[in-house]
Amino acid sequence: MYRLKTDQGKIFKQLVYWTARIIPVSVVTGSLVALFLWLLEWATETRWAHLWIIFLLPVAGVGIYLLYRFFGKDAEAGNNLIMDEIHEPGGGVPIQMTPLVLVSTVVTHLFGGSAGREGTAVQMGGSIAALFSKWYQLAKEERSVLLLCGMAAGFGAVFGTPVTGAIFAMEVLFIGRIKYNALIPCLISSLLAHVVCSAYGIHHTLYSITTRIPAAIVKKGGWELSFDFVLLTKVIVAGIFFGLAGMAFAWLAHTLKKLWKLLIKWDWLIPVAGAVVILSVSYLLGTFDYLGLSVTNPDQQNSIVSAFSYGGVTHWSWLWKLVLTAVTLSAGFKGGEVTPLFFIGAALGNTIAALTGAPADLFAGLGFIAVFAAATNTPVACMIMGVELFGGENILYFAIACFTAYYFSGHSGVYKAQRIDVPKTTIKP
Amino acid sequence: MYRLKTDQGKIFKQLVYWTARIIPVSVVTGSLVALFLWLLEWATETRWAHLWIIFLLPVAGVGIYLLYRFFGKDAEAGNNLIMDEIHEPGGGVPIQMTPLVLVSTVVTHLFGGSAGREGTAVQMGGSIAALFSKWYQLAKEERSVLLLCGMAAGFGAVFGTPVTGAIFAMEVLFIGRIKYNALIPCLISSLLAHVVCSAYGIHHTLYSITTRIPAAIVKKGGWELSFDFVLLTKVIVAGIFFGLAGMAFAWLAHTLKKLWKLLIKWDWLIPVAGAVVILSVSYLLGTFDYLGLSVTNPDQQNSIVSAFSYGGVTHWSWLWKLVLTAVTLSAGFKGGEVTPLFFIGAALGNTIAALTGAPADLFAGLGFIAVFAAATNTPVACMIMGVELFGGENILYFAIACFTAYYFSGHSGVYKAQRIDVPKTTIKP
Repeated sequence: MYRLKTDQGKIFKQLVYWTARIIPVSVVTGSLVALFLWLLEWATETRWAHLWIIFLLPVAGVGIYLLYRFFGKDAEAGNNLIMDEIHEPGGGVPIQMTPLVLVSTVVTHLFGGSAGREGTAVQMGGSIAALFSKWYQLAKEERSVLLLCGMAAGFGAVFGTPVTGAIFAMEVLFIGRIKYNALIPCLISSLLAHVVCSAYGIHHTLYSITTRIPAAIVKKGGWELSFDFVLLTKVIVAGIFFGLAGMAFAWLAHTLKKLWKLLIKWDWLIPVAGAVVILSVSYLLGTFDYLGLSVTNPDQQNSIVSAFSYGGVTHWSWLWKLVLTAVTLSAGFKGGEVTPLFFIGAALGNTIAALTGAPADLFAGLGFIAVFAAATNTPVACMIMGVELFGGENILYFAIACFTAYYFSGHSGVYKAQRIDVPKTTIKP
Repeated sequence: MYRLKTDQGKIFKQLVYWTARIIPVSVVTGSLVALFLWLLEWATETRWAHLWIIFLLPVAGVGIYLLYRFFGKDAEAGNNLIMDEIHEPGGGVPIQMTPLVLVSTVVTHLFGGSAGREGTAVQMGGSIAALFSKWYQLAKEERSVLLLCGMAAGFGAVFGTPVTGAIFAMEVLFIGRIKYNALIPCLISSLLAHVVCSAYGIHHTLYSITTRIPAAIVKKGGWELSFDFVLLTKVIVAGIFFGLAGMAFAWLAHTLKKLWKLLIKWDWLIPVAGAVVILSVSYLLGTFDYLGLSVTNPDQQNSIVSAFSYGGVTHWSWLWKLVLTAVTLSAGFKGGEVTPLFFIGAALGNTIAALTGAPADLFAGLGFIAVFAAATNTPVACMIMGVELFGGENILYFAIACFTAYYFSGHSGVYKAQRIDVPKTTIKP
């Protein structure tokens, strides 16, 4: 009993210790994310209003290249640098990362690159946490925990999903496990950053899945079948495609990065070439819907939101977003992969729904979380994100889609610093 | 690209391999759980109708003792035996476990022991899986996976929560981590067993939390606070008490078990003594509400369901259920701990709500999952159970309550075979 008593005391002290250290990190991160989201909205609306601005995308690319060239070569590694620092605390995460990634992401979106926003939020959270851990003079292992909290804070605030933020930070480091090394600290940072970010008046896009799965009760005698196996099959097939799409994205982004270096001698020309490809593809397609975040679009078409209704996207929207995002990010523009992955998934889900006669909103929602689960190898966080964004009624389908997609994305992922703990090819204890 | 291709193929083959092996296990387990739940309802209603039957509880206890003495000494270890077999496949899980635990749990409930039902379901699933793995002639490591699936099937079917069943099986083996060694196989078994169990017409108790947390928006200028910090504080305090209650239960159950052996020379007398204590306490309290499952009661008082309304339980109901269950199980009666843990948590939540002026249904729901999370060290599975049973709106509070309770329950738990991977006393990576 004495041992138990000391355990409780130790745990309590540790939680107080961490809470005190986390509060400033979360408040600063939440505030920065609010500023970032506000700037992002401004950039998106400015681009819509002055579409000619996209012709400056090549120049913007060179600008971002120069920024990173002169002010922060280390910071270029982005999310991977933070993850590496958590795995093995070493050189640290430079604080320049925050202004650099903030400015260059806003520039990317203003001039029409196809990118996300979670990378920026996670990098700001991570580099703020690194700064504070220097001030606190934390030991190596404690620095890792604070970095983890910074990631959770950035993620939770940028999407308005605090529980997902906490689980994501702990799940993304390794393929095949969640380790509860900072369960409560991550949840506190993620929640606090979200509350702070919302306090500035930032609102997150609301999605809704109104389809209720009919109980499909077939009653015969005392027997009843309260489960729709046809729908289940469709969800599993969709899950496989979501996994393959996640894998295809990770593969294309990595391959293009190598290809640019191989084909183009001068590094500063890479973003110019990327920008030219982005603009050319957009002109060939006759639409600029795939530029920027694509959460919504002025024409109410080909956006994440429109993917929740039949006909809201074309059958190939997912592919174009996939290609344009891989080009954008591999050429050196900033912002992260997650929101484009949401788009790719939602659009692919919409297409699969249209082809198989399934509910569009449900399948868009499944794709939204499952392609993300596949590309980042975080199936549990994504299932929980489904609950936080779309409600809990369909958690079973969220689980099936995310877990299936996770298996079928193979072992590559968008984060190279992710390590393998339990390979997917061996289902073993 | 070739390597990726082989990965997908390998994964696909493995999933087909496992699905084929899992289907019979899940169908048999689901059917047995249906039979079990049906018998349990019969036993409960029979006891209500003929209350004098509880005077036979001492005799029933001796019967259970003799059953295990003559037909399955190994099987006595129950859930711990299955967990040990998954950790280190060895002597195997005897198939006698299924009839033994089924009969003795029904006997326990018929004659008025205070016990649960998940232990029975998990043990049936585990021993059925062990039987099939012998027939399949599986290698050691594969046997562990099938046992894990059996546990998931039992858990998913008995509570009607397929996602929770899958996560619980993977989370319960170690304190401090979830390892994705069988993500999809566990989900398939759990879902299939649930569907099969429901097909027999089994319905699970529906709980509902109708309280919606007011957005608590304080708007001043451009600022808004959309979060209720007073409620948050109440939830954290409640979480600490839920954790301590979970720990107290585990401690009392283990301590009583040792105490019986110390005080009573003849093993067969232990259940008799336990039964006498149970009946005496019930008479002293003047209520039989704490006997059996206590999911509902004829007098609509002191049950899990009644704990969701103000005044549905007394301020000490949780303590009496805790004591009576610890006595019941330590004395050799069967059924498992989880449903009583639901009761203890829901009743304690109700009491805390009444004392602090918080919503009774929300706090009953939080206690329901959090005391279970604390005593079994499965915070993520319990958070998900909250979503599956009560809906996703309050997932944030589920997470806060379960994670807090998890930390404050220390390192003991109801399952002795559980191993420690990440201690709670060191928040480290």
